[in-house]
Amino acid sequence: MKKSLIALAVLAASGAAMAQSSVQLYGIVDAYVGSTKDTIKSATAESQTVVGSGGLKSNRWGMKGSEDLGGGLKAGFKLEQRFKSDTGEQDGVAFKGESSINLSGNFGAVALGRMGTPYDDLRGKTNPIADTNISPVGDTIKNAKADYTDKTDNTVAYVSPTFNGFSGAVAVSFGENKTNVADATSHSSLKLQYANGPLLVGYGFQKEESQLTAGTPAAATGQTEDKTFNLLAASYDFGVAKLVGGYQTLEIESKGVKQGDNDSLYFGVQAPVAKNINVFFGYAGSEYDAVTGTDYKATGFTLAANYVLSKRTDAYVGYKQIKKENDTTGADMGKVKTLAVGVRHTF
Amino acid sequence: MKKSLIALAVLAASGAAMAQSSVQLYGIVDAYVGSTKDTIKSATAESQTVVGSGGLKSNRWGMKGSEDLGGGLKAGFKLEQRFKSDTGEQDGVAFKGESSINLSGNFGAVALGRMGTPYDDLRGKTNPIADTNISPVGDTIKNAKADYTDKTDNTVAYVSPTFNGFSGAVAVSFGENKTNVADATSHSSLKLQYANGPLLVGYGFQKEESQLTAGTPAAATGQTEDKTFNLLAASYDFGVAKLVGGYQTLEIESKGVKQGDNDSLYFGVQAPVAKNINVFFGYAGSEYDAVTGTDYKATGFTLAANYVLSKRTDAYVGYKQIKKENDTTGADMGKVKTLAVGVRHTF
Amino acid sequence: MKKSLIALAVLAASGAAMAQSSVQLYGIVDAYVGSTKDTIKSATAESQTVVGSGGLKSNRWGMKGSEDLGGGLKAGFKLEQRFKSDTGEQDGVAFKGESSINLSGNFGAVALGRMGTPYDDLRGKTNPIADTNISPVGDTIKNAKADYTDKTDNTVAYVSPTFNGFSGAVAVSFGENKTNVADATSHSSLKLQYANGPLLVGYGFQKEESQLTAGTPAAATGQTEDKTFNLLAASYDFGVAKLVGGYQTLEIESKGVKQGDNDSLYFGVQAPVAKNINVFFGYAGSEYDAVTGTDYKATGFTLAANYVLSKRTDAYVGYKQIKKENDTTGADMGKVKTLAVGVRHTF
Repeated sequence: MKKSLIALAVLAASGAAMAQSSVQLYGIVDAYVGSTKDTIKSATAESQTVVGSGGLKSNRWGMKGSEDLGGGLKAGFKLEQRFKSDTGEQDGVAFKGESSINLSGNFGAVALGRMGTPYDDLRGKTNPIADTNISPVGDTIKNAKADYTDKTDNTVAYVSPTFNGFSGAVAVSFGENKTNVADATSHSSLKLQYANGPLLVGYGFQKEESQLTAGTPAAATGQTEDKTFNLLAASYDFGVAKLVGGYQTLEIESKGVKQGDNDSLYFGVQAPVAKNINVFFGYAGSEYDAVTGTDYKATGFTLAANYVLSKRTDAYVGYKQIKKENDTTGADMGKVKTLAVGVRHTF
Repeated sequence: MKKSLIALAVLAASGAAMAQSSVQLYGIVDAYVGSTKDTIKSATAESQTVVGSGGLKSNRWGMKGSEDLGGGLKAGFKLEQRFKSDTGEQDGVAFKGESSINLSGNFGAVALGRMGTPYDDLRGKTNPIADTNISPVGDTIKNAKADYTDKTDNTVAYVSPTFNGFSGAVAVSFGENKTNVADATSHSSLKLQYANGPLLVGYGFQKEESQLTAGTPAAATGQTEDKTFNLLAASYDFGVAKLVGGYQTLEIESKGVKQGDNDSLYFGVQAPVAKNINVFFGYAGSEYDAVTGTDYKATGFTLAANYVLSKRTDAYVGYKQIKKENDTTGADMGKVKTLAVGVRHTF
Repeated sequence: MKKSLIALAVLAASGAAMAQSSVQLYGIVDAYVGSTKDTIKSATAESQTVVGSGGLKSNRWGMKGSEDLGGGLKAGFKLEQRFKSDTGEQDGVAFKGESSINLSGNFGAVALGRMGTPYDDLRGKTNPIADTNISPVGDTIKNAKADYTDKTDNTVAYVSPTFNGFSGAVAVSFGENKTNVADATSHSSLKLQYANGPLLVGYGFQKEESQLTAGTPAAATGQTEDKTFNLLAASYDFGVAKLVGGYQTLEIESKGVKQGDNDSLYFGVQAPVAKNINVFFGYAGSEYDAVTGTDYKATGFTLAANYVLSKRTDAYVGYKQIKKENDTTGADMGKVKTLAVGVRHTF
């Protein structure tokens, strides 16, 4: 993300002193023309010619700032709205992308508000084509059963400093809906990583407990639907190509009774093949084994290339395909196919 | 609270190179106090004392930017929100005004996203008092039957360079709702114009095809409700006064069967009558001839003046009246009257 | 549309003229971690661990600007959005905080749009801990019966210049919903104040007339539900401590028949107790005497302290408690308790 002109100009204005206070206006506009067909959602779906939003990166605009409080202490904030560039619609709440305030120093950083989880940070860093409509990972895993929640409200987070390449982060999100007969919804998330030169390797953990309303048996204190995610992920930049990948497990429980396992593998490679041209390949596979009931399986891949027009703008072409199967019977349950030719601009 | 502008302004001092990349925060705030009475909507309507929004120009704020990519190529974006200055409410989707990304060069410009149609561009340029609550044109035509859609989602547009005053633009908007038994909604729009000194003359075409859901007979592939607009419009600036006007035809079809014609004429004059004072007059008349059923007729005019307080701010007074008749029986169907005294500020 | 950046930048190069035109991007991000329990709303409510929004000041971002028109005349605007920092949700309409345009000069200022009422201005200036989730005043009064409307749509306001410390403001807000059988909703508000050195003393009046729909007897012209507020308020800064306080009366009428009185008293003290540390105490009591039916009583207090990290950032801790009683029977109707430890940042 580029520091907008406002911040840069403040720096230009009066030197280092002014760097202490600034608000930066920033964003990404990414749109493509292409076609999409989703026979998983509807067996009779037709291929649609589309203008789509966020092929390479979700559309956003935001305000962020940082203030030097002296003694190594800093205060910062970030407010980020997501939108759909093809229709001009807001995507989610006003500041779905982030709404946070933080204090940072030698001790690390503490943040309050709505923000991406530590788990999401590690997944994002090791996704083949991160955070995009043409990424194969999230959609493939969701089509098997379920993927993690990337951003949480009402969150307190702590990010450690880096010690010899090692760092960690932990976040807790309060549901604020505790009653006299039910536990509150809550999310907790953790990340441990080692980053050194071309290597990144990390472990992520996220537990999502959702309050169950009274049923049969009545939901009592402690009764929630729980999703527990574990992730091992890594990336290595060989120079001629960068490899990324990860393995994720998910266990789903309801009122303490196991419902099933959803295990997923993803990997990708991105390589600069010519001046200003990069190619990307990504793959994801995910299987859901239910304790009782139907098993599902989804596999997906993306092949894409971009042409770098400037540090802030690139043009791209990409193709994504996801396939879903009934993993008990082996029956085909449809495909998602998306072809996109687009432009991304960062400000 | 920080003066962002100071920061931005200092940027200028650092020279031409910085002009290559920027984000601009811009807008219009326009509000008036006045009265309005609409007996077309309700025969028993009373006159309301109001604070109204956008007398001269719709309220908006936005971000836009342009980046020089070298070799004559540029990337640009525009995100524009509309709002009601009298209540602070958002008007429509987040970026109703525009949400687009474009690449431009010697070949012209290609844009993706949500934007005004080429047809709208020509209508806007020749409206007596463009894009305003006190303009007589749009409301008069809508009261007869129907006017065109000014902005479209999911749009691909091409704007040509100008050759000896001649230029053109074309846009296609995809409905993305094709099914195995129905065509997608789609809009297409075209503009050809000649602009030379004081003269502008142009032709516009817009076709709006709306998907019909199954009925009797069942909507099959190709069955849509179609609105076809044609426009001849011109303006001439005599210096002592500027004349504008246009003639618009609309044919409405449903499942290929003609429903009726809605023909409209509008014209206006704006003249600087004293230092910093301009007067405006506009007229519109529109008739709907139904193949079967009732015909309607609407006529409207606006008389207005503004006082230029600065390049960015003016005060204004205006009066608009629209009259609707049953054109089969000649019966009066009511009037809309609006009186406004307001201020407009551009930033 | 004007290229604000370029224009502004060019102004900067020309020196002092720059201040004449500007758009400022500003805001506040305020979040806390704490706990809250509200047995007034629900007798079985549990204590919730929360991340909360706006402990010391409501979260907001906005754009504002001022243009010197020459001859002492200025044009200005303000667009301010409110949001919840803990969830990223928009709070109310797009520009709930303010959406206004104004002209000001030696004569004072005239403003159009949505804005805080003059009454609200006086209440805000004399609130112990203004405009915050941990302020005791508004919530206490609302729990007794009703408090005033702080911001109004469709408003015309006039603010006088200051003569020897005396100034005033008046605002009228039109409901724009007059019918042939019912008066429009309308709000009118007034403020008179004297400010001189450490002293501020003021009188506020606000009348809120709400249109009643037809009932038994049918609502005829002039029939509204009326709330009439009167306020005497003052503050005095002794240096070692600042005292604030006010007394508010509210009379509620329906169709000209008195329903009851809601009288309220509030006061507070804020004192700098050490370098960069301030403590705050606030109290509010409110009684509702119904002509027929149940009387209510609410009392509340807040104890808080902040640590000033910079001119733009502070950390704070606060505790608020509100208690409601049935003032006819003396029965306890519950308590609201909020504990907050937070950070506020202004940009």
